[in-house]
Amino acid sequence: MPTTCAVIMGGGVGTRFWPRSREKFPKHLLRIAGKGTMIQDTVKRLDPLVPPRDVFIVTNRLQKPQLAKQLPHVPEENIIVEPVGRNTAPCIGLAALHVMRRDPEAVMVVLPADHRIVDEGEFRRVLAVAIETARESSSLLTIGIQPTHPETGYGYIQFVSEKENDVPNYDKGVRRVKTFAEKPNLETAEQFLASGDFLWNSGMFVWKAATILQEIERSLPELSNELRKIESDIGTSRYQQTLETAYGIIRGISIDYGVMEKTPHVFVIPGSFGWNDLGSWDEVYRISGKDDCGNSITGTVIQKGTKNTYIYSPDKVVAVIGVEDLIIVNTDDALLVCKRGQSQEVKEISDYLKRKQMNEYL
Amino acid sequence: MPTTCAVIMGGGVGTRFWPRSREKFPKHLLRIAGKGTMIQDTVKRLDPLVPPRDVFIVTNRLQKPQLAKQLPHVPEENIIVEPVGRNTAPCIGLAALHVMRRDPEAVMVVLPADHRIVDEGEFRRVLAVAIETARESSSLLTIGIQPTHPETGYGYIQFVSEKENDVPNYDKGVRRVKTFAEKPNLETAEQFLASGDFLWNSGMFVWKAATILQEIERSLPELSNELRKIESDIGTSRYQQTLETAYGIIRGISIDYGVMEKTPHVFVIPGSFGWNDLGSWDEVYRISGKDDCGNSITGTVIQKGTKNTYIYSPDKVVAVIGVEDLIIVNTDDALLVCKRGQSQEVKEISDYLKRKQMNEYL
Repeated sequence: MPTTCAVIMGGGVGTRFWPRSREKFPKHLLRIAGKGTMIQDTVKRLDPLVPPRDVFIVTNRLQKPQLAKQLPHVPEENIIVEPVGRNTAPCIGLAALHVMRRDPEAVMVVLPADHRIVDEGEFRRVLAVAIETARESSSLLTIGIQPTHPETGYGYIQFVSEKENDVPNYDKGVRRVKTFAEKPNLETAEQFLASGDFLWNSGMFVWKAATILQEIERSLPELSNELRKIESDIGTSRYQQTLETAYGIIRGISIDYGVMEKTPHVFVIPGSFGWNDLGSWDEVYRISGKDDCGNSITGTVIQKGTKNTYIYSPDKVVAVIGVEDLIIVNTDDALLVCKRGQSQEVKEISDYLKRKQMNEYL
Repeated sequence: MPTTCAVIMGGGVGTRFWPRSREKFPKHLLRIAGKGTMIQDTVKRLDPLVPPRDVFIVTNRLQKPQLAKQLPHVPEENIIVEPVGRNTAPCIGLAALHVMRRDPEAVMVVLPADHRIVDEGEFRRVLAVAIETARESSSLLTIGIQPTHPETGYGYIQFVSEKENDVPNYDKGVRRVKTFAEKPNLETAEQFLASGDFLWNSGMFVWKAATILQEIERSLPELSNELRKIESDIGTSRYQQTLETAYGIIRGISIDYGVMEKTPHVFVIPGSFGWNDLGSWDEVYRISGKDDCGNSITGTVIQKGTKNTYIYSPDKVVAVIGVEDLIIVNTDDALLVCKRGQSQEVKEISDYLKRKQMNEYL
């Protein structure tokens, strides 16, 4: 039976988690809400469906050492380094080349490095259906999340409810994708939720490596062209140089926009396993355990009249008096104090630090 | 002419300035709102009325090294160390003994170490009148502050407006004290302000050292008894032991309660020189320079949508998003986040730290 490989995309920074997330220590290398770091949890929950030896990580040069340290069971040659980030389509194309070298028939599971999943058994059940379907039908599959509220921070996937002849494993929950929708406003999100045929776009994909490379060839011929050059040099001393040259030419484009939305035969499997992309400190607060006053606290905190506040300060004592609805994140060299509900704006801190060349805080 | 000596009482901690103020680094050894540290400014503004060689400081063992370092022009033998704090009456009595050794006729100016004064020239003018009056009349004098608002955080002094025969230097502003009033509630404070004959009790006193020792003998015979034992051993090898034994017996009592309120012939000189006891972070915010959004900032701060907030973080970058009316004080090892208007409660932090034996943060 062909190998199932997982490709975990772990190259971002997660600037909305400043001051904890840094270029060298991005969100997925942090322990934010799980047992291990986010990427450790991501690798662990795949086992035994995909054992660590079949897990590939795409990352950048800066993060590789820490990544290798955190994932001792993932072979170091499975850590793929992109010279620069070019969004998800090149990342997935490059990973597909490496997976093909392992097994030309391999099924490839693509996962973000920094999502939280509560019900791991159900997650693996859904993933197993997707893997089986991809193997049997050479389809492009994506995992859609059954929405629980009218979230405006996610993209949505609309599916076709009716049974059509060419939908593989319909009885196991596979549905044809009707359309991909951008992040909606609240009114639209409420309509999506009410309709019953919209799912959250989780950014998790399942396909054969060969299939996605064919689709890239069809929809993104320029990218495909560069990938072919890289492919011919994999495993040789020219690889690094070829890779860098190719990435100098490749333009950034997402797999959703570049491939998925341009291909009619895309399928989705709805899943309900307590998924959260932990996109901001507000979401971390939301899923965290809280005391009677609604405070979520990490570290030594002396509080008086403080409510509904998230405090992370593992190394320094914090006293809070009379505050409400704050997010306080206190690290060795920086402090964030943010009103709850505004933590999306934390990413602007990074922009500011870049502009001011305060690189030590990036 | 007899010497004029100043006695600066600098033994407290100023727990309301946690986490900046610590046992070893109390409020008066910090630079909070002035050019130098509070005690440096206190010594400096006396010059030339009282030069540093005639300044005495009463402090404790823990603070002495830093104090000596900050005040190189004050002779080290002028730093008087109390074994334990016993409130102001013993502190002033002990200092009076040391002043008497310098000059039995000396006039003694008693000042807290941690007050802020804007108009130093006017302050010295008022003080000079007090010194002259004390020298000529052997009176007990106190400096009263013309109130600018109905403050509930200060004690008040009511004076007699009418000219009486035995009031010395009436034409230079000296008035007889009618009564000392405790910290009032707001309604009472408003009445005080409206009456025109109430002043804020600044805790600044002027008298001859000999006079205050006589008054202590009259009103606090037990304290006087112990002071006499100390006096006879000053300058000998027995001093330290005698001092410690005496302080084991002496009970804590304030000079206001123990002496001033029990003596009919007490005078006050009203002063208006921008006085502030800087009793809390709220007051520091109030007197600080602010930007257009009402923020007072020390350190590198990235702000977005932040208003009327005091931020002190000299060494670590701080990002604040969407917050209002906060006091944020970020030191090497601790952080305070306090709602503006509640900074009086900061002193409870110290109580908590003591209870939990978190002595490193005291």
